[in-house]
Amino acid sequence: MKNNDYTLGVLQYIPFFYVIWSDDLLSASEINVVQSAIERDESLDKKDITLLNSWLNTDKPPLNSEIKSWQHTVSNSEVRLIESENYPLSGLSQRMTTFYFSETPVNKSLEHIELNLGIQPNHYKHLFDVEVKQETTSDYYNAKEIDTIVKGEFSEIVSNLHDVLKDPVFDWDIHRKKEDFRSRVLAQVQHLASKKYGAMAYPEAYGGTNDMPGYAFIFENIMFVDGSLAIKFGVQFGLFGGSIQKLGTKPHHDKYLNKTGETNLLGCFAMTETGHGSNVRGIKTTATYNSKTDTIVIHTPGKNDNKEYIGNALDSKMASVFAQLIVNGKNEGVHAILVPVRDENHKLLPGVRIEDNGYKLGLNGVDNGKIWFNQVHVPKENLLNKYGNIKEDGSYFSEIKNPNKRFFTMLGTLVGGRICVARAGLGGAKMALTIAVKHALKRRQFNNNLKIQEDLLMDYPTHQLRLTPAIAKSYVYDITLQHIMKVYSDDSKLDKRKVETQVAGLKSIITWFANDTIQECREACGGKGYLIENRIADLKCDVDIFTTFEGDNNVLLQLCAKGVLSDFKAEFNSAGFTSVLKLLSSQIADKITTINPIYSNKTDSEHLYNSKFHKHAFEYRTRRLTYTLAMRIRDYIKKGVPSYQAFLKVQTHLLALGKAYSCELAYSTFIDFTENIQDKKNKDLFKKLGNLYALHEIRQDATWYLEQGYIGSTKSKAIRQRVERLCTELRPHVGVLVDGFGIPNHILTAPITK
Amino acid sequence: MKNNDYTLGVLQYIPFFYVIWSDDLLSASEINVVQSAIERDESLDKKDITLLNSWLNTDKPPLNSEIKSWQHTVSNSEVRLIESENYPLSGLSQRMTTFYFSETPVNKSLEHIELNLGIQPNHYKHLFDVEVKQETTSDYYNAKEIDTIVKGEFSEIVSNLHDVLKDPVFDWDIHRKKEDFRSRVLAQVQHLASKKYGAMAYPEAYGGTNDMPGYAFIFENIMFVDGSLAIKFGVQFGLFGGSIQKLGTKPHHDKYLNKTGETNLLGCFAMTETGHGSNVRGIKTTATYNSKTDTIVIHTPGKNDNKEYIGNALDSKMASVFAQLIVNGKNEGVHAILVPVRDENHKLLPGVRIEDNGYKLGLNGVDNGKIWFNQVHVPKENLLNKYGNIKEDGSYFSEIKNPNKRFFTMLGTLVGGRICVARAGLGGAKMALTIAVKHALKRRQFNNNLKIQEDLLMDYPTHQLRLTPAIAKSYVYDITLQHIMKVYSDDSKLDKRKVETQVAGLKSIITWFANDTIQECREACGGKGYLIENRIADLKCDVDIFTTFEGDNNVLLQLCAKGVLSDFKAEFNSAGFTSVLKLLSSQIADKITTINPIYSNKTDSEHLYNSKFHKHAFEYRTRRLTYTLAMRIRDYIKKGVPSYQAFLKVQTHLLALGKAYSCELAYSTFIDFTENIQDKKNKDLFKKLGNLYALHEIRQDATWYLEQGYIGSTKSKAIRQRVERLCTELRPHVGVLVDGFGIPNHILTAPITK
Repeated sequence: MKNNDYTLGVLQYIPFFYVIWSDDLLSASEINVVQSAIERDESLDKKDITLLNSWLNTDKPPLNSEIKSWQHTVSNSEVRLIESENYPLSGLSQRMTTFYFSETPVNKSLEHIELNLGIQPNHYKHLFDVEVKQETTSDYYNAKEIDTIVKGEFSEIVSNLHDVLKDPVFDWDIHRKKEDFRSRVLAQVQHLASKKYGAMAYPEAYGGTNDMPGYAFIFENIMFVDGSLAIKFGVQFGLFGGSIQKLGTKPHHDKYLNKTGETNLLGCFAMTETGHGSNVRGIKTTATYNSKTDTIVIHTPGKNDNKEYIGNALDSKMASVFAQLIVNGKNEGVHAILVPVRDENHKLLPGVRIEDNGYKLGLNGVDNGKIWFNQVHVPKENLLNKYGNIKEDGSYFSEIKNPNKRFFTMLGTLVGGRICVARAGLGGAKMALTIAVKHALKRRQFNNNLKIQEDLLMDYPTHQLRLTPAIAKSYVYDITLQHIMKVYSDDSKLDKRKVETQVAGLKSIITWFANDTIQECREACGGKGYLIENRIADLKCDVDIFTTFEGDNNVLLQLCAKGVLSDFKAEFNSAGFTSVLKLLSSQIADKITTINPIYSNKTDSEHLYNSKFHKHAFEYRTRRLTYTLAMRIRDYIKKGVPSYQAFLKVQTHLLALGKAYSCELAYSTFIDFTENIQDKKNKDLFKKLGNLYALHEIRQDATWYLEQGYIGSTKSKAIRQRVERLCTELRPHVGVLVDGFGIPNHILTAPITK
Repeated sequence: MKNNDYTLGVLQYIPFFYVIWSDDLLSASEINVVQSAIERDESLDKKDITLLNSWLNTDKPPLNSEIKSWQHTVSNSEVRLIESENYPLSGLSQRMTTFYFSETPVNKSLEHIELNLGIQPNHYKHLFDVEVKQETTSDYYNAKEIDTIVKGEFSEIVSNLHDVLKDPVFDWDIHRKKEDFRSRVLAQVQHLASKKYGAMAYPEAYGGTNDMPGYAFIFENIMFVDGSLAIKFGVQFGLFGGSIQKLGTKPHHDKYLNKTGETNLLGCFAMTETGHGSNVRGIKTTATYNSKTDTIVIHTPGKNDNKEYIGNALDSKMASVFAQLIVNGKNEGVHAILVPVRDENHKLLPGVRIEDNGYKLGLNGVDNGKIWFNQVHVPKENLLNKYGNIKEDGSYFSEIKNPNKRFFTMLGTLVGGRICVARAGLGGAKMALTIAVKHALKRRQFNNNLKIQEDLLMDYPTHQLRLTPAIAKSYVYDITLQHIMKVYSDDSKLDKRKVETQVAGLKSIITWFANDTIQECREACGGKGYLIENRIADLKCDVDIFTTFEGDNNVLLQLCAKGVLSDFKAEFNSAGFTSVLKLLSSQIADKITTINPIYSNKTDSEHLYNSKFHKHAFEYRTRRLTYTLAMRIRDYIKKGVPSYQAFLKVQTHLLALGKAYSCELAYSTFIDFTENIQDKKNKDLFKKLGNLYALHEIRQDATWYLEQGYIGSTKSKAIRQRVERLCTELRPHVGVLVDGFGIPNHILTAPITK
């Protein structure tokens, strides 16, 4: 027996007590776990129990000198810490007691503590001066299982696509010259069309499977191959084809939809104008009905009224042109008209001018161009006439009498595109995270002079903090976007206003999230991340524009907030005085809850990890921002400030509300989803991801929560610590979590991932 | 006389009262301004004064219906608001009274109020329903004056450079193929060398003017031309030439320095290795002295030990190679050795292998490469031997005995490069801001249906908020970097440790600032910002890597924090017990100040705009973070946690301290500078920029300040409002402020700026 200060019974607990106290790890409920394990441990005598319990008194913690001597006791034992063991700390303890006394058996009480406290080697391995046998990633969870839980019924569709993507036409390469790049991407789009992916969202009669949610999966997954591919694919089938499908009627479908899905008709979606980016209603291109010739005349009136950034512009034979429809001298508002732009020899048709937009930051495989029309005549039938028609007698007719409502109905049918853009952005983020994490699980940097091996990048707390919350958020947004696509695609619900509001907000926060994440991943990979071969550079350049196109994020968030506001207003106005009173009282109820210092400074882990707390925090923020926003606007209006100006005055408030609403929506969607996971092990994992999402979001807006008194200083700090701790807890599983994104190996070409 | 409810005396004040109350503009001191003006206004009778004063009672503000009737009174007058007038609101008022009564004279009291409240048309023009004759930018300040104040004695050097940059070799163009791009950039570097800019920082004997601060100005300004140019210029003259100048001795200078400055010798700086990015001390390349041949043998031992990302690698004839110097079997640590890599026919020399690093996210005009050495012999004299030498007898000698200190002394001489990288990043941010602001002063989007003209982008509050603080910060960082370069270049001060700590922090926060700003500008320009022709795309890609090279920002911030910590430790240890006591008492003094609710909720504008408040807030943060960090580390150590591990545990805390310290340094440097501006008008402008910097920084870290109780909710909200208001106040001058960056028109090629 070697020299040490403790009985065998006490000695076996020393590593545990060292871990617990050197890092101040324990909350009240956790101390309970240790206490009850000690009580039940039959290897301890009464004296041992008394001593051990005396070390669990948070009011009178062990002396530092005591803690230090524990550390020496462990270090002097010359044992190893083996991360891959089921109970690494218990194993360490057992080997240590064997060293000091003699062969000792496994102690179930220790294993119980280790399991229930959830303490893992990456919490404590840094604390000892012993040799660590490391593992880079744990196999406790299974990536394939995670992937299947997320994709559900769509697993097979995606898996089939992955096989298709093995075709050499999809092999990744660097294309610097835009012409070469574009022809490559066109070939890829045609290949996907030949495998029926283009028409997927169309009705079965037109080569599709009426599967918009499936189409969205395809869209995200081809993003892994290349951003230009995803966008050109989306322009051809989603925007051009989608405008025919959703704004046109049967004759248009019969004539064009098959050809579009097969890429036998290449088309573009000519909405945006140089002078009018986000303001679609203000576009200047005219479509004037000429009753004599029974044609519609498409015309670009002024210098900045040309169409711009139009994807597929150089390859297209036809354009779906958005223009002010003028019938009998009256402007009936924006409508879409199919305009042939090139003949079968790919020559421009008379009156049409198309210019290349040139090189862009990214997406250089997409042929964006500018288009001018000079008095171009097309048959009346080319009007996509589902929501507004020119009748036989040459008069205009629409079932939607209110021009405002008609405009938004037309645009609303295109909301699917926004969901797809968000998904593609999310795909970019997942790809970048996968690359950065795989790199961080191989790359070593710096070291303690005493150690032979340098630490893995992934073992640095700062590195965990920059990547892990983004992984959690990717899962949350994935589930959210799947859900919103289901709601959007549900044809039984005709009123799409709510889903439009939601998509506007989600597209904004998710594309911003994607950009931030990709940037973080670039930096996390250092110089290697800067090389094109490692793929993050292209992702960064391609995804960048997602914040701007299909609706500028700042504009969309205001749209979202106004949607929330009008729901609120409806609620406020519908039942008159009573409803106002009810509303105000719910406001006051909020006040009472939050001013309660017990709630605003509740910091135990049960509370902080409780989704009810998160949901309440998010709901509270949305409701409060809505209420104060409404009051501010009302105040301005009452003082005579015109309403347009009043809305300008509260612009930053609108953005805050848009973000808050979207965040709440994402979290509640994710929580509903986790409730339905059958298997407990994975359910707990997803709940942990949800916890990290929620606490990180609250942390990011902690200024607001503190200002409102919703959380106090102590709670705010506790949330920060919990975020860091969750990142550490997820450290062993981070490799499996990125594998759970399901990006196939043959697409993951970045040399730093190998 | 037309119908209205007021006397002439009262009527003339109506527009002012409407502006004041509809937007809740007034603080107590501002109410005072109005009151005293009214008292002194001889055009008012007692009844008028009583009425007007009754409308200044904040406890009993005018009824909304009253305020609304004021708005109608103004709107019904059919007058115009002319922004370009000296006193636009007084002018509006005069025209209004003329409309309702008859020709009325100018009222000096009104002008007094308008001047002293600082209310400007962009505060209130949205509030009226009258025609506004807008001006896009004011000429109250002069861009040239601002530029001269900032550049000081360096104005002429920069202005001469701008003339040189008119040479067609600097004309901007798109170069997609790296080989073409690189030869273009090489020609540009050679042209600058021929004009003596390369040697500028070298002594006069070697073609220079010993002007490192001037060199830094050149560096920032060529960034406006192209990022690749700046970096290749920096590699050749700053890194390669700088290593000869600073690590070599007279024989090296005589032999190489002239040729380097003239680009007759192209060289590279071979420090970084594939396996060792940020960990220079851990590089593996060996330089073994062979006493038999009296040569040093350079060798790459292992697979990942090659040099990587080495700029100028493909054009170089010589490399300054950092390697472990081994003399008589003993490793003397990292030293630099000049190694010829190519012969005069540009063939690689035996034992040297160089490979192109290929395409990168940006900087494709720089030829980065990987270099391997296989037992390459160079003469002993090629050791850059200022800090460590191999003597005639073959033994190693250094005046700096401590290897650690020797290593940091060598690296310390290269700190100038970090300042230059920060300056180049700042240059990129200025360029992007100039483009985005000029675009926002032309671009119109959306409109009120009642107005003919759409608003300028720059008139949106959200747009002001995304660009204006960045403009203010650019000025602050410009002054800061100039100052730090002066300190660094001051040869009378030999101990550079402090300036190293400071540069490490500043380089990090400024290059991150630059990236964030360029990204914001890209988004603020929408689709136009995405086109390469508008230049922001290249800036984004080029500046991105600045966060990683010349020291990874996360690593540098930890270096910075450790520097602050050792100052603190020195302070703590030097005088023993007394000093500890003093320190603790200053901590307690902090506590008293901050817990004082009057201070933590002081929200009047005098206080919020007082640089003493800002300085205290920044100092408090640095000191508090230092103190708590030191205590946490001490706690870990006391419990036996090894110090390397203890530092890992507090990594995020280190980053926070590094940022806080750098921010404090930047602000105090800027404030010292503003104190010395002679002319009051410009001094006030610079102070306002300082206010915006400080309040925006405090706002960004408001969570921390709230957690500490340093600011209360009310103050936190007031700071947010002040940030928004400062942006609005600077709105008329935003055009002049970006012109004040002094980017010449011929370099500003982006079509959206025209």
